Amino acid sequence: MHLLVALITVLALLVYLWQGQRVGAARGRLGVEAPATTGNPEFERHFRVQANTLESLIVFLPALWLFAIYTGYDWIAAALGVIWIVGRIIYTTSYAKEASSRSLGFGIQAIAMIVLLLGAGGGVVWALIRSYHSA
Amino acid sequence: MHLLVALITVLALLVYLWQGQRVGAARGRLGVEAPATTGNPEFERHFRVQANTLESLIVFLPALWLFAIYTGYDWIAAALGVIWIVGRIIYTTSYAKEASSRSLGFGIQAIAMIVLLLGAGGGVVWALIRSYHSA
Amino acid sequence: MHLLVALITVLALLVYLWQGQRVGAARGRLGVEAPATTGNPEFERHFRVQANTLESLIVFLPALWLFAIYTGYDWIAAALGVIWIVGRIIYTTSYAKEASSRSLGFGIQAIAMIVLLLGAGGGVVWALIRSYHSA
Repeated sequence: MHLLVALITVLALLVYLWQGQRVGAARGRLGVEAPATTGNPEFERHFRVQANTLESLIVFLPALWLFAIYTGYDWIAAALGVIWIVGRIIYTTSYAKEASSRSLGFGIQAIAMIVLLLGAGGGVVWALIRSYHSA
Repeated sequence: MHLLVALITVLALLVYLWQGQRVGAARGRLGVEAPATTGNPEFERHFRVQANTLESLIVFLPALWLFAIYTGYDWIAAALGVIWIVGRIIYTTSYAKEASSRSLGFGIQAIAMIVLLLGAGGGVVWALIRSYHSA
Repeated sequence: MHLLVALITVLALLVYLWQGQRVGAARGRLGVEAPATTGNPEFERHFRVQANTLESLIVFLPALWLFAIYTGYDWIAAALGVIWIVGRIIYTTSYAKEASSRSLGFGIQAIAMIVLLLGAGGGVVWALIRSYHSA
């Protein structure tokens, strides 16, 4: 039933909603009127934190599930998911303070995301090879 | 077979494509040349409508499906999905007229999205507890 | 097991990560400091390539899978997925050179995406009709 990856999915999306809440709060506090998304450096950092996480979620979520389904190792997928979440939390707080300090958190989540995607790809290709071999 | 949430998924994505078509039309009509996404307030509002909906879809779609799968209540997931869609349609037309009138539609879809995500989380945690209990 | 659409999913996400790598490289080469995403036309084109692909992936991936699941034609879904990928690769390289040349690649992937979504919708509606008829 893939309960662990389902739990990771919910937790990752809660981190993302927390980032979105910070963007909304920064919009009011720093006086950046919608629809603008530029004009104040601190607001722009909060905005980019959420935008960059969205850019990663579109890879992370499918990779997480495909890894779990096609390798059969749910717990490895979930463990990589925990690393992604930790990386994103570090990224959120450090980028908000200063743009130049965003690399550590970004790097942590990027590695987890790429391992998940390549692992998923490996699992799918391996299953394809076996299915043609047995056909 | 989760037919109702599949139908909601298709309808939500059609609303999103409709928003995208409005962005493209506004780009031509208001003379905002690619790759720019700023410079004309009306264009920026159309652009933010679609961008904000994308920011929500990345939560809404996984939450919709996880809610249906892990609570077993497809019809509640689908009903919340209808609320999300209605909220997004109100948001689209009101934000396009004036940025300050975007709150009602935003609030409606946000509530549906959060209930779906928390419900999905509850269903997953409950299933995890039962699985450890019976192990 | 939907191996072909899983493979297409991984390949589409690899194209997207390649676009992201190009954005990061352009940021350094062209001196656009985070959190800015504007200020240099070439950077903006690379940035919009990835952003526009993200805007499409949120439709493409669910449509790909729903098409495969609810029509049962995995190979048609996968073939449309190949067209989407080819369109996105053409889009990436041509948009990077000049914004006005982005239409061909965009059009190719848009057609594949829309056929997938409408086909998925048709498959879902057809299954709903049959399920009520047999109930």
